[in-house]
Amino acid sequence: MGVGDKEGRRDETAELARRRGFIWSAFEVYGGAAGFYDYGPLGTLLKRRIEEKWRDFYRREGFYEIETTTIAPREIFESSGHLESFTDPAVRCKECKSIFRVDENLTVAVKCPECGGGLEASGEFHLMFQTRIGAGKDKGKGGSDEEAIKRSEGYLRPETAQGIFINFQRLLKFNRDKLPFGILQIGKAYRNEISPRQSLIRLREFTLAEVEVFVDPAADKNNHPRFEEVEDRMLSLVVPGADEAEEKSVEDAVSSGIIANEYLGYHIARVDEFLECIGLPRARLQFRQHQQDEMAHYAIDCWDAEFLSERYRWMEIVGIADRGDYDLSAHARSPNVNMHVHTESGEIIPHVIEPSYGIDRIIYALLESAFYEEQIGKEKRRVLRFKREIAPIQVAVFPLLNRDELKSKAVAVFRMLRDAAIAVEYDNSGSIGKRYRRQDEIGTPHCVTIDYETLEDNTVTVRERDTMNQVRVAVPELKDVLE
Amino acid sequence: MGVGDKEGRRDETAELARRRGFIWSAFEVYGGAAGFYDYGPLGTLLKRRIEEKWRDFYRREGFYEIETTTIAPREIFESSGHLESFTDPAVRCKECKSIFRVDENLTVAVKCPECGGGLEASGEFHLMFQTRIGAGKDKGKGGSDEEAIKRSEGYLRPETAQGIFINFQRLLKFNRDKLPFGILQIGKAYRNEISPRQSLIRLREFTLAEVEVFVDPAADKNNHPRFEEVEDRMLSLVVPGADEAEEKSVEDAVSSGIIANEYLGYHIARVDEFLECIGLPRARLQFRQHQQDEMAHYAIDCWDAEFLSERYRWMEIVGIADRGDYDLSAHARSPNVNMHVHTESGEIIPHVIEPSYGIDRIIYALLESAFYEEQIGKEKRRVLRFKREIAPIQVAVFPLLNRDELKSKAVAVFRMLRDAAIAVEYDNSGSIGKRYRRQDEIGTPHCVTIDYETLEDNTVTVRERDTMNQVRVAVPELKDVLE
Repeated sequence: MGVGDKEGRRDETAELARRRGFIWSAFEVYGGAAGFYDYGPLGTLLKRRIEEKWRDFYRREGFYEIETTTIAPREIFESSGHLESFTDPAVRCKECKSIFRVDENLTVAVKCPECGGGLEASGEFHLMFQTRIGAGKDKGKGGSDEEAIKRSEGYLRPETAQGIFINFQRLLKFNRDKLPFGILQIGKAYRNEISPRQSLIRLREFTLAEVEVFVDPAADKNNHPRFEEVEDRMLSLVVPGADEAEEKSVEDAVSSGIIANEYLGYHIARVDEFLECIGLPRARLQFRQHQQDEMAHYAIDCWDAEFLSERYRWMEIVGIADRGDYDLSAHARSPNVNMHVHTESGEIIPHVIEPSYGIDRIIYALLESAFYEEQIGKEKRRVLRFKREIAPIQVAVFPLLNRDELKSKAVAVFRMLRDAAIAVEYDNSGSIGKRYRRQDEIGTPHCVTIDYETLEDNTVTVRERDTMNQVRVAVPELKDVLE
Repeated sequence: MGVGDKEGRRDETAELARRRGFIWSAFEVYGGAAGFYDYGPLGTLLKRRIEEKWRDFYRREGFYEIETTTIAPREIFESSGHLESFTDPAVRCKECKSIFRVDENLTVAVKCPECGGGLEASGEFHLMFQTRIGAGKDKGKGGSDEEAIKRSEGYLRPETAQGIFINFQRLLKFNRDKLPFGILQIGKAYRNEISPRQSLIRLREFTLAEVEVFVDPAADKNNHPRFEEVEDRMLSLVVPGADEAEEKSVEDAVSSGIIANEYLGYHIARVDEFLECIGLPRARLQFRQHQQDEMAHYAIDCWDAEFLSERYRWMEIVGIADRGDYDLSAHARSPNVNMHVHTESGEIIPHVIEPSYGIDRIIYALLESAFYEEQIGKEKRRVLRFKREIAPIQVAVFPLLNRDELKSKAVAVFRMLRDAAIAVEYDNSGSIGKRYRRQDEIGTPHCVTIDYETLEDNTVTVRERDTMNQVRVAVPELKDVLE
């Protein structure tokens, strides 16, 4: 396959995702706005399935989910450090004044992508969206007008984690004052990117699914009670300076000190397991350790789960960090904020292990890796080869012909499956071939066709998406066969 | 029960909700901020169940869900009319300068609630949160710097509906160019209230679950294909000017012209059905029709589903409106925005029927109406009498005593139920009585206790929350008995 083919295929995935109602650039009728995407009907179904699988996966660890606000007052981000350091270096075009983020592809040495003008450094650009809470006059707290206005400043959260940290004492009490415990949150987060240009990869509004596990560093970190469930799992690991990934068992990686501790190793393994269980091909996954100089100032050890995209190369889809006591200690420096826990070794501030999933990037990775194209005679067949459990529609039901007796039987079969909580669609428009192609394109694993034989012996044709094999199944057995 | 008792009971519901991890005022360790609440672990479980039930309920109508951005550019709200008219009249204290919303309880005649000073009118206060998208220089669109800055203005959505409206043509295409069709959205919405002081009732950040049904006014409005499923349902209706509610069937209300049309009547009935199915007592529900002068300028007919709260009296929890063609026509006035549909009677702009659910208020209503207290000997027993399907935890499993042989069996039973996708909690701390009381308080319908008899004959004690009846059940039958 040449470069041309590859380019073509990339565009076809994106085109299919748009055309079939997975992902749409937002506000398009108003000219659009970079960095904002909407999920259409099928994209939303897919996203819900991923989120539900994620919840189930971590509830099995005994973790509870919470839901905190997306707006928070200035003080929270003063304490967390975001107000000071959540910025990107920017450059500005001397000619057209456009502003760009400095990254690997754009340094001050190159020309303006808009007009070709020269670029100059433009300082640090703050990445939090700012707003103002209330009428701007903060009642009852005293101080000058300037202070009152400062107090009314609010920001959209750049991660969901802070909402968990500031509720730490309540959560500890909910867990009956015992460590360790884990808290989940799925929700919107926001980064006011300077110049986002990469579809679902660099969004200004996006969905994070975050886990914060609070541990006693002395008692827990090298003693995860379920470590043996994952210790033999082989991971593809890239350490700083290495040219390529090396396969190592979790056990090896931890005992040789590559992964900082057992608790972090356990959660890296679980991330790997989750990504596999939603259908991402393992050959396109690796874990890359942050170098000392790129590691966020708070992290003790930090790994990115990366997906090999045809379009963007290796891209981060999950970050897994041992954040030490950085976050809780940062908040504990504020007056009246206590983050201590009484343990056998005294009053400590717990450490935090954090797997943080970028849901939009995972959905992009799923679409790209599920896309499959083949030549059937003169036609191209395009398929999204989703695993059955994450496919937006699980079964489509068709009457072979648009005749009343077939339609009413097809509707009855459709209702039977719907009542069994199967995601099912009814379609009677166009030829059977056209209906199959449509369902292939949206990744529906099975199509059920009602024909005249059905009216005689109560059997239907079940067609499988990937093999296109067809079998006759008796209607009463249909539910079980499909599951 | 005297007023004092009632007051006490109100406080106890709120206190229980806070103490047991349902609802917490946000940023409390930082002094809090009015109008912002977090959902704790049990509140989040409850909220997820309500949202899932809602999705299932409307998916059965054949409706699809989408997920659009919470931030949108200025232009969207210029077109929708929010920029101009989404305001509240405000008053300001002449002494301390505090600003308040003008409502039933506070007019310019009364004194400042903060300092007792005199109040003066302070104009219209805008209720949308404003922010700025990008670096403030909108590239490539030309115009003055002032226009570029205006273009970079963004707002947090005050309802989820606009994200559906602006995607109308794509959604129509997804529905193969046919009317009617319905679209769902659940998500955060924001109103920068001037002075919110009523816990979950007036929030600055809240969750809406909205349905937008697009209909052909000529062909659909008086011809809902499933009307007969709901026509006999009795509704409690309050029309403008009436002192109290009157019981009427949906059919009666529509044919006598009280409810504007069959399509709206159908959806009012479905709202009633949904509220009943999640467990709100019907005796505390009514539908109140908006008066002409309070009806939003866009609505043809508008009803509020109201819940009778002990604390807040009748409060709106769902709004159901026939919005006519207001929304689509408003957007269609923008250049390049087409909202027409080709039908048999020509190119029309569809009408919109909209049930819009305030999820936080519904959760408040559920907590308040589920709260039950009784005297058992010297002790008060507090119970949240949730329906089983919405209870955060469905089953709790206890070893009778803290002994290894009972604990290992209890853990085995716990795992068996968890693997059957039942929301189950394991608890071995404190006396059995204390553990029952804790589960009663969080509304767990069943507690399963493992004792020495279990080790002999593999039976357990199942205790039911409301009656406190206990029965012995064989472990292999436990799953079925609980379901």
